[in-house]
Amino acid sequence: MAAGGFSAQEIEALCQTPDPNTKDFLFQQTMYRIKDPRKSLPFYTGVLGMTLLQQLHFPEMKFSLFFMGYENPSDIPKDEAERKKWAMSRKATLELTYNWGTESDDSAYHNGNSEPRGFGHIGLLVADVNTACDRFEQLGVKFIKKPNDGKMKGLAFIQDPDGYWIEIFDQKTIS
Amino acid sequence: MAAGGFSAQEIEALCQTPDPNTKDFLFQQTMYRIKDPRKSLPFYTGVLGMTLLQQLHFPEMKFSLFFMGYENPSDIPKDEAERKKWAMSRKATLELTYNWGTESDDSAYHNGNSEPRGFGHIGLLVADVNTACDRFEQLGVKFIKKPNDGKMKGLAFIQDPDGYWIEIFDQKTIS
Repeated sequence: MAAGGFSAQEIEALCQTPDPNTKDFLFQQTMYRIKDPRKSLPFYTGVLGMTLLQQLHFPEMKFSLFFMGYENPSDIPKDEAERKKWAMSRKATLELTYNWGTESDDSAYHNGNSEPRGFGHIGLLVADVNTACDRFEQLGVKFIKKPNDGKMKGLAFIQDPDGYWIEIFDQKTIS
Repeated sequence: MAAGGFSAQEIEALCQTPDPNTKDFLFQQTMYRIKDPRKSLPFYTGVLGMTLLQQLHFPEMKFSLFFMGYENPSDIPKDEAERKKWAMSRKATLELTYNWGTESDDSAYHNGNSEPRGFGHIGLLVADVNTACDRFEQLGVKFIKKPNDGKMKGLAFIQDPDGYWIEIFDQKTIS
């Protein structure tokens, strides 16, 4: 029994062959809420190297969305309508939701890793986990776990400005 | 002021040019916890059309990981070590964490959309939101919002077996 009562074969048997109706589905976004764009945008661009693909503002509902991703900035269409279509059809974007005014609230967002648990983290594959983490340290990034801490060597967890966990790993971690 | 005190220009100014040290970073995974693989695996494969890319079991720590994604099943390497490397370097995977035994707990995981809020949803781009949602209805999927509900027409939110929200949208929603 590989998985607490499940064998690997049972797990495979629970999986169904993709329905042809889903053949064009694309995992486009992961959304979480941020308190302050002044902190989050420099972090996701400057520290993590993402690009702001698209910003959308909804004045009536008092929120803004920032779509971040690993894309070549020079690929961003100049035309606004084209940019939106392009951004919203990129794979693996991070959608940061900013409810206006939260930067001056005392309350913090919940990262899902203490009770009540649910969401855990996003994870970035990097060329070398130690090199990446040395740079994060120099930039003053908060660590939950450094690459050599604990049992699971060669992977790290850092925190974004709201406390969300970001796993950092490389091909050596995996093998 | 586009964004609650921020102009679009200010938002752009908060964004930094990617550091060359981050050029190989890849947004590989989004992790959340699931209670029961018997419910989640048929949902993510059969209903949403994802493929189980990799399963990893940690008997000492009593948990299992299931990496799901939109990849061609025929691309999965036959060799186990190769499969792991391949799976862990795919962009946009969903990492489902199963802590053994949670299927018989009374407690539910928290989806982040009631207090305490934080994580919001994952989002899938589909060819046509109405066609996709008609199929979801036939399959008995739970809806938070159908495409024609509320102010934001042409996008839907469904729930996975643990109650996590999944946004469904298409190119027409965007434009």
